[in-house]
Amino acid sequence: MSTALFTDRYEFTMLSAALRDGSADRRCVFEVFARRLPTGRRYGVVAGTGRLLAALADCRVDPAELAYLRDAGVVDDQTARWLADYRFTGDIHGYAEGELYYPGSPILTVTGTFAECVVLETLVLSVLNHDCAVAAAAARMVTAARGRRLIEMGSRRTHEEAAVACARAAYLAGFGATSNLAAGHRYGIPTAGTAAHAFTLLHDDEAAAFAGQVAALGKQTTLLVDTYDISEGIRRAVAVAGPGLGAIRIDSGDLSMMARQSRQLLDSLGAVDTKIIVSGDLDEHAIAALAAEPVDAYGAGTSVVTGSGAPTAELVYKLVEVDGRPVVKRSEHKATIGGRKTAVRRHKPTGTATEEVVASRGAPEPAPHDRLLQRPYLIAGEPARDLPTLAESREHLRAELVAVPWEGLKLSAGEPAIPVTMMGGDR
Amino acid sequence: MSTALFTDRYEFTMLSAALRDGSADRRCVFEVFARRLPTGRRYGVVAGTGRLLAALADCRVDPAELAYLRDAGVVDDQTARWLADYRFTGDIHGYAEGELYYPGSPILTVTGTFAECVVLETLVLSVLNHDCAVAAAAARMVTAARGRRLIEMGSRRTHEEAAVACARAAYLAGFGATSNLAAGHRYGIPTAGTAAHAFTLLHDDEAAAFAGQVAALGKQTTLLVDTYDISEGIRRAVAVAGPGLGAIRIDSGDLSMMARQSRQLLDSLGAVDTKIIVSGDLDEHAIAALAAEPVDAYGAGTSVVTGSGAPTAELVYKLVEVDGRPVVKRSEHKATIGGRKTAVRRHKPTGTATEEVVASRGAPEPAPHDRLLQRPYLIAGEPARDLPTLAESREHLRAELVAVPWEGLKLSAGEPAIPVTMMGGDR
Repeated sequence: MSTALFTDRYEFTMLSAALRDGSADRRCVFEVFARRLPTGRRYGVVAGTGRLLAALADCRVDPAELAYLRDAGVVDDQTARWLADYRFTGDIHGYAEGELYYPGSPILTVTGTFAECVVLETLVLSVLNHDCAVAAAAARMVTAARGRRLIEMGSRRTHEEAAVACARAAYLAGFGATSNLAAGHRYGIPTAGTAAHAFTLLHDDEAAAFAGQVAALGKQTTLLVDTYDISEGIRRAVAVAGPGLGAIRIDSGDLSMMARQSRQLLDSLGAVDTKIIVSGDLDEHAIAALAAEPVDAYGAGTSVVTGSGAPTAELVYKLVEVDGRPVVKRSEHKATIGGRKTAVRRHKPTGTATEEVVASRGAPEPAPHDRLLQRPYLIAGEPARDLPTLAESREHLRAELVAVPWEGLKLSAGEPAIPVTMMGGDR
Repeated sequence: MSTALFTDRYEFTMLSAALRDGSADRRCVFEVFARRLPTGRRYGVVAGTGRLLAALADCRVDPAELAYLRDAGVVDDQTARWLADYRFTGDIHGYAEGELYYPGSPILTVTGTFAECVVLETLVLSVLNHDCAVAAAAARMVTAARGRRLIEMGSRRTHEEAAVACARAAYLAGFGATSNLAAGHRYGIPTAGTAAHAFTLLHDDEAAAFAGQVAALGKQTTLLVDTYDISEGIRRAVAVAGPGLGAIRIDSGDLSMMARQSRQLLDSLGAVDTKIIVSGDLDEHAIAALAAEPVDAYGAGTSVVTGSGAPTAELVYKLVEVDGRPVVKRSEHKATIGGRKTAVRRHKPTGTATEEVVASRGAPEPAPHDRLLQRPYLIAGEPARDLPTLAESREHLRAELVAVPWEGLKLSAGEPAIPVTMMGGDR
């Protein structure tokens, strides 16, 4: 399926005008960055780059789309001919998936003619704004869970295709599994889930439902015990599955108290290895509040797929250089520096990150323990090298979160975990 | 493309267990409703039903998906055979797209065997939760705009496929156009957009950019005048395009003051018919605050696609009846009533809505000026009749918003615009 029309009309009208007045072939550099993080957040997480590169490979205007664009008067003949042959032949560099970012970090740099770069703006931002927002929220939940397993189960609370991308971003951020089967199929992410309240209500009584589930899914399954009375549900669950029952899930009520009481009851019934999974409107704060309770895994849904209060990363795609000349919108003079940027992250000898240095039109002065943050993705339109696997990106983020100063992992509102030093173009 | 895996794993494991224990063929009724509206909202807007019905038609498990499900251990042989032949043969009734809804309104009712209904849960909720959230936010912006034109331009701030659905929901809610070309192509929605700051920065100066745009797009185009100095930008725009310039767009700064000063300047230059379009982080409150200013159209982006603070409608899909027996999860006894519901809306003779009556297992007593809210969509798996066009649904919502008591259109937080009376199953 073509991704070429996942775009704003003005990209194509700018293209028309640039083709006509001769400016379409000027060499341009566009950069993706966030002017700020969502209120109170201490870091952003790069996610979606792999999805974006796949979408770019499908960014060709097909004949039906071309007919629409002409019939609707969006493009003229010259532009239609240009679009019919369109293929991105420029360069893309960027941060790794799973890398942290801060205000001003140039997480993606697109270089090529104005024409071939401008038509990518909307698609680039849609993918990155969505996936980065979800990954950042999910990463906070992973920190809050302190090593306990997290299951992403928010598909029903977001657009059906967005749900698949959410599952990918949450797994990248450290979740252990998703409920979403399309994500399992498409990306190889582990999937989880056993039964909802409807399965219990379908049966004549709870014991019959549990028996049906255990017969089909085995004793290692997870039984949902809160359709009627939780204590009775737990007794029935152990009676049906035996003390070797895999897990129980509790989806409502005071989860702290329920977890404690359920653990005691399970232990008293001999089900000492039966795990407790809790779900129901959990966000990073609710997860953190359960740290002292005997919970083995958390199911999180709405808060993951809606970015836990920050549903978009607010990344922008800005033209920073034309034919080697830095450009900048005047009203942004103080906040934004024109010109192509190079970014490094600085660290203490212990590995703790201390600063990100972003230099315009030149490299930051080298220092020990620097790490260059940008890598080539496409050179002259061709893949520069194999992409990391999702598992590798996940491990990269895990390691990066270890390198953040400890204040940066606090859930409370605060400043970015490390400062970003912008170095101007006149150096 | 198949939509069958846009689902949670537990739908398929429940299916497995139900096929095995013989409960899969029990006749079930599932209902979609919201327990509550987002905090302070006064109504919900039904949106996405047309998209959902199209997705249901593609809800067949293809061979590659089936192989994945078996290899991943999600389903057993019996379930795999059942899924290979799956086609929904039950009934679907529901509210019209563009209908308002309130807490407890049964906006969609799915009737059939447990097996064929349960596997639809996640897809149904994904589509409706997303589209209803966007439509409700967009409808508030339409009210705030008091008849002025609204352009949806939020594609870059949400997932690339979700963006297309957002454009559809915003148009349904009364927006006049979208920036999203895929939405134009797929749904015939009018598209809009001319140029971004990048087009100005690409050129040697602003006058050259304006000349290039006018040459390609004509004098009726919209020139973006705030890349450098707005007053100079307006003078240049009129100098290049003449006083017949279509519109200017202002995307930053104090939009109230800018709109007033720009109107004066345009008028003084003879460009008395040149329209003023404003954009830049507009939500319903910002739009309302511009009511007294000489603004002709608003561009709204992030706030539309993120539901302006309520990115999901929190609709649920609940089993309410099994083989004619009403069922309900015990912990919800007070709030939820089992059994299939029938809903009518009551009105004054003047047409103003006064109440929604939702009766379980029977119809509300008839009253003058009642309107039955549910209509058949699928009967025995076949379309019951032609769906309304998007334009018809848009007109339906427009008329419904006229029928709401005036307090219901206030943007401030408040109670639902009309009360919902739930009538129990024992009547």
